[in-house]
Amino acid sequence: MQSIDVPLGPRSYVIHIGNAAPGQLGLAIGSFSPPPSKAIVIYDAEVKLIAEKTAKELGFEPAKVCMIDVPSGEESKSIRYLEYLWKNLLQFGVDRKGIIVAVGGGVIGDLAGFAAATWNRGIRFIQVPTTLLAMVDSSVGGKTGINLPEAKNVIGSFWQPSLVWADIANLATLPTREFRSGLAEVVKYGIILDADFFEYLENHADAILARDTSALTEVIRRSCLLKARVVAEDEWETTGRRAILNYGHTFGHAIESLTEYGTLLHGEAVSIGMSMAGHLAASLQRWPDHSLDQQNQLLERFGLPTRIMAGIQKHLTADRMIQAMMHDKKNTYGKLNLILPNRIGEVQTVSDATIDLVRKTISHHLAL
Amino acid sequence: MQSIDVPLGPRSYVIHIGNAAPGQLGLAIGSFSPPPSKAIVIYDAEVKLIAEKTAKELGFEPAKVCMIDVPSGEESKSIRYLEYLWKNLLQFGVDRKGIIVAVGGGVIGDLAGFAAATWNRGIRFIQVPTTLLAMVDSSVGGKTGINLPEAKNVIGSFWQPSLVWADIANLATLPTREFRSGLAEVVKYGIILDADFFEYLENHADAILARDTSALTEVIRRSCLLKARVVAEDEWETTGRRAILNYGHTFGHAIESLTEYGTLLHGEAVSIGMSMAGHLAASLQRWPDHSLDQQNQLLERFGLPTRIMAGIQKHLTADRMIQAMMHDKKNTYGKLNLILPNRIGEVQTVSDATIDLVRKTISHHLAL
Repeated sequence: MQSIDVPLGPRSYVIHIGNAAPGQLGLAIGSFSPPPSKAIVIYDAEVKLIAEKTAKELGFEPAKVCMIDVPSGEESKSIRYLEYLWKNLLQFGVDRKGIIVAVGGGVIGDLAGFAAATWNRGIRFIQVPTTLLAMVDSSVGGKTGINLPEAKNVIGSFWQPSLVWADIANLATLPTREFRSGLAEVVKYGIILDADFFEYLENHADAILARDTSALTEVIRRSCLLKARVVAEDEWETTGRRAILNYGHTFGHAIESLTEYGTLLHGEAVSIGMSMAGHLAASLQRWPDHSLDQQNQLLERFGLPTRIMAGIQKHLTADRMIQAMMHDKKNTYGKLNLILPNRIGEVQTVSDATIDLVRKTISHHLAL
Repeated sequence: MQSIDVPLGPRSYVIHIGNAAPGQLGLAIGSFSPPPSKAIVIYDAEVKLIAEKTAKELGFEPAKVCMIDVPSGEESKSIRYLEYLWKNLLQFGVDRKGIIVAVGGGVIGDLAGFAAATWNRGIRFIQVPTTLLAMVDSSVGGKTGINLPEAKNVIGSFWQPSLVWADIANLATLPTREFRSGLAEVVKYGIILDADFFEYLENHADAILARDTSALTEVIRRSCLLKARVVAEDEWETTGRRAILNYGHTFGHAIESLTEYGTLLHGEAVSIGMSMAGHLAASLQRWPDHSLDQQNQLLERFGLPTRIMAGIQKHLTADRMIQAMMHDKKNTYGKLNLILPNRIGEVQTVSDATIDLVRKTISHHLAL
């Protein structure tokens, strides 16, 4: 496996990427100091087999491992499930030297990570992402948390994992649509930070879509490397640097919040959002039309949407979209801040896009 | 007011101690960067007047301050009250630049601090302790959290305040018994770290008991200075250094857990615990009998118990005490670790006290 260091001082950790050999995970955990006393594996009920395989690979006596399944889906990021996990941690006698192992996608990572952040004032946890999206994005960076019924991610902590274990083999059973959704964030890294990587994606699109091991390893490795760099520069989201990771997300979150949950996957909404942000940047003559075309062609090659499909147009009027975008957490003083590209490989925060221009961009995506 | 720096790198903060002049708190908050957008004052219902006075002193427009009262008592450190606070934070629209102001004793500080630690992945909070115990102990050090019905403080985070505001005037209405309870932790600092401070306490006991402003300011200043030093050396409780703050607490927690809540105040249980730990140290010939006498005489002069009173003896048999002590969080591998004094001003962690000797110490305190 390949490894990437995320340099965060005393909170530094390693991301392992590739096809894991038997015994390798246990070996990595064996080097933890102090040695973990017990492990509690919190997993998405849909990946039970992967969770059981992972539990065996931890290298613990069976009596020191407890398995807890959580239903798939955003609804599990709730106070009720958090409470359920806390009660299980108590019942299983998990002390400060215990460890939580999160097996699943972003929902499980966020929920289990927050349980780790808040148990005994913080215990260690391992991310074992089983979706491409989680491997390239949510498992790296230390954001953990749950939702309130009225607002997503308002409850949470920054809490870094002790290890991220991105085993490509765990992607074998991932549904095609979910796999493609993960590629939206991958394309995003190319646009915001790395033109070479963008070119690599263009040149290896077929191998990536075929889930070729070496192509996937490279895609995940470079994505994690880019994300880790940004996170290291702005661990607590205080300098503004981390905001570039939100390219396409202000539009994307508005799309997600206005359509019923599950209509669009996160990556699909972000893909449309990148098309919108790119279009807005082109309208402002901040980047050329041909770069926008290049971005959208790659997204489409990966099977991702770049316009608002007929079925959801009635929810996504320009007025509703703008209203939803104004509610975004990033707009702390009620101003619309957007991340827009200057060129492939570079973006910046822009606050001078007029509401009128944003409206035109949205309307353009409705008319396509 | 006097001020003490707690040097924790980017999480450093200042403790202000003394009689605050009008406008001083607003001035201190005025220097925060970025300026807080809104304040939510979470207060113990018993100190409503102090909370209202504090709210006015924040220097915010009235529309930007929200007041939330919480009932007095350990029962408020619950998931239900945490959820109640989260919902209020949402309803009042507290964003990442918002600030929580905790007005009350340890319960309020722990609960409100944990709400701050977990809102929007962590917002700033100010401690305005209104008990001596909170001023010298719980408001400093960044421990926040709540209880599960079966276990105290198992849910929580390390989250440092942005400011601690120890206004001596807020102690004027504190009941005598609670005031004396706070002095147990003060005596503890002398025993574990500072023989000069212990001597100061002996020489100024009358002024302290009379709540003389300059004596109280000195007591709180030196206590905070000592605690801040230990916290700075071991912010996350990982090096073992912070454990010295638990002198008297392994016995004390067992006493608290075996008597009905409210029978003894925390400081009273700790006072008996220090007498027990001191007695054990003397039995092991680790420190002289006259030092134990000196410690206990000061505790008694402050109106604190140094034996197990008749009314609670039936709950505190040696067997029950030892069983409860074995459950203490500090004993991660099932071993009894105790903090025992070598001399006044110095303690160390000891793991060689036999169960038999611990039993004798407890029995001695039952027989007194």
